[in-house]
Formats: sequence, C-alpha cells, structure tokens
Amino acid sequence: MATKLTYFDLRGLGECIRYLLKYAGITFEDVRVTFEEWPKFKPSMPFGQMPLYEEKGKTATQSIAIARYIAKKAKLVGKNDWEDLEIDAIVDTVNDIRQKIAQYYFESNAEQKENLKGTLFKDTIPYYFERLENIAKENSGYMAVGRLTWADFYFAAVISVLNHFAGTDLLKDRPNLQTVKSRVESLPAVKKWIDVRPKTDF
Amino acid sequence: MATKLTYFDLRGLGECIRYLLKYAGITFEDVRVTFEEWPKFKPSMPFGQMPLYEEKGKTATQSIAIARYIAKKAKLVGKNDWEDLEIDAIVDTVNDIRQKIAQYYFESNAEQKENLKGTLFKDTIPYYFERLENIAKENSGYMAVGRLTWADFYFAAVISVLNHFAGTDLLKDRPNLQTVKSRVESLPAVKKWIDVRPKTDF
Repeated sequence: MATKLTYFDLRGLGECIRYLLKYAGITFEDVRVTFEEWPKFKPSMPFGQMPLYEEKGKTATQSIAIARYIAKKAKLVGKNDWEDLEIDAIVDTVNDIRQKIAQYYFESNAEQKENLKGTLFKDTIPYYFERLENIAKENSGYMAVGRLTWADFYFAAVISVLNHFAGTDLLKDRPNLQTVKSRVESLPAVKKWIDVRPKTDF
Repeated sequence: MATKLTYFDLRGLGECIRYLLKYAGITFEDVRVTFEEWPKFKPSMPFGQMPLYEEKGKTATQSIAIARYIAKKAKLVGKNDWEDLEIDAIVDTVNDIRQKIAQYYFESNAEQKENLKGTLFKDTIPYYFERLENIAKENSGYMAVGRLTWADFYFAAVISVLNHFAGTDLLKDRPNLQTVKSRVESLPAVKKWIDVRPKTDF
C-alpha cells in the first residue's frame, strides 16, 4: 500500500506536506482531485475535506497535523518540548493570518468582501507581517528556534498561496521573511519538486 | 519565576490549559485580565492575543500549542507518532467547528448573523457532531486512540463554551460525546478545579 496524499489540483493546504515528503525522501502518490470530481469524492472524506494522507492502509486528515507528523520523520522538529511549542505556536499564528486572508479571497458577497478588504489590508496584514518579520529576524532568517524546522516549510508553502489571494507580494520590504521562503525553496529536494510540479494559480 | 497563564476572566481558550495544568499537578498563577484592563495589556501580547503561557521566564502563545506542551508533561499524548497525528487531527477538527460557532456568536451585524445561523444549525453543526459522535463511539468514549488523551480535555473544555455560544446542548442524543465530557470532568483534579473556579458564562 503506497503512501498517498489526496488533495485538490492546487498547492493550497497540500503543498507544505508535499515539500516535507520530498525533503524526507518519502515516495508518495500525489493524487489530485479535480473540481469536477470533488462532489463525488467529498462524502468519502472524514469531514468532507482534504488533504487526506494515507500510509500503510491508515488515513489521517488535517493539513497541519499531517505536516507535523512528516516533519518528525524528516527531523525538522524541535530538540525538546519547549522548542516544539515554539514551532507549533508560530505555525498556528501563520495559520491565523492565512485564514483571515482566505476568508477575504473566498467571500462571494461583493459588499462583504469590500468590508473585509479594508480591515485586512489596512490593519491585519501590516500588523501580522511586521511581527512575523521581527520573529524571522530574531531567529536569523528562520521562523523559530534559529534553524531550519517545519515552521519554515509551512510558511514558505503558505505564503505563495497568500500572495495570490492578496494579489500582492506580502514579503515586499520583509527581507527576513524572504530569506525563510528562499531557503526552503532552495533546498535541493524542494527545488527539484518546484521545477516539475503541476503549475496552478495557488 | 512562577508558571503563569494569562487569559481573560473566561473559560474560553484558556480552560483546556487550566484543566491540563491541574491534572498534571503543576502549580500556576491563573492571571485573569478584565475587559477594562485588556486595551492596556493587548500591545504587550505577541500578536495582541491571549492566552499567554509563562514558564521559567519564557513565554508562549497559541492555546492548542500550549495545551499540547502541557499534555506531554501530563503523559496525555500518543504512544507513537501516528497516535499523536490522530490526536492532533481530532483537536484541529474540533477547533474547526469551534471557530464556525464562535464566528456566528461574535458576529455583530444582525443580518449577517441570521445568515450564518441558518447554515450553522441546519447543516454544519449536525454534520460535525454526527461524525464526532461516531468517532467517540469507535474510540469507546474517547476522542482518539481508545483511551484518555489531551484530545478529550480539549473537547470537554471547548464544548461547555460552544453550548453557551450555540444556546443549546450540542451533546443532546450524543451519548458517546457526553461520556468524553463527563470522564474528563470526573477526574479528581479537574472536578476539584471546576468546584472552585471563577464562575463565568463561557
């Protein structure tokens, strides 16, 4: 039974896991469900959501939980429980701002979307990215504990999606966050994957 | 330097951590910031949010990350990495439905709130709680891996808040989820805490 990741034909919430699997040297089936196929697949997903990770016939959901699990195999976790807490906390913080930007992007009501846009671009994005930049600076160009961990993978994978959602380069004038992203994307296994992966908007 | 948890004078996102600290037998300062004091405190919080956990002069944010860290001390985690993945995934799933119900509760626009209410009570809540009940049944009255873990603590602490937000007993006719909640609340250290803790709406 092959290791398998099932997700949309998108980077989205799947790409961090794909980066980690590639970095860990784990061979996997990169199953991509089209939007046409999704209504047929959805009822078979535990909470109607993807990604779904499969290993040795067992399945698991939740992108961040799966990423943490692969990160342990890849030795991209903390050296002790406090370091893991620092890594987990920054991942959840990046997820917070990801959710806020995604909520704006997927809002279908035009008036409501305009309302969200104002607060998001004037307050929320500057607030979060100023603080994230400071954290990356304090950690010498990493998101946590001053060295490469899966928090960097999560940030690098998510930011390219968020740039598309926001319609702007969120890392402009944020040199330390740019360093985080380019470090992950320059890792040979990740770089090789980026060169060959299916091209999608986000 | 005492171990300290700083949060609102609420159960909210702090109560799971308080349960875990009590269960682990860790003495801590239960610092409660009033809504009047909060504007003064907010700028000192890493991302303007609580809870904040302090231990040996170091601080950490993000309620789920902190809960996982305390759970390791309390030996309420998995026996292996796959079990931890199962626990993490169900915690994140409970957090998903928590966020949806909280979004409804805190929506200030009356029309928007009415819109959210329809979908939430007709579709989202029945969908999630049917599946969570099945998971609790499969796990013999626990949320994961068939025995007591911090996923049970998270569920028990969050559900009493969600019942208030939803204005209804979300566990009605869900006997296995009721078992999860009552098991946690019956643990001597947790029961003792519940008896003496400050009384708040949620």
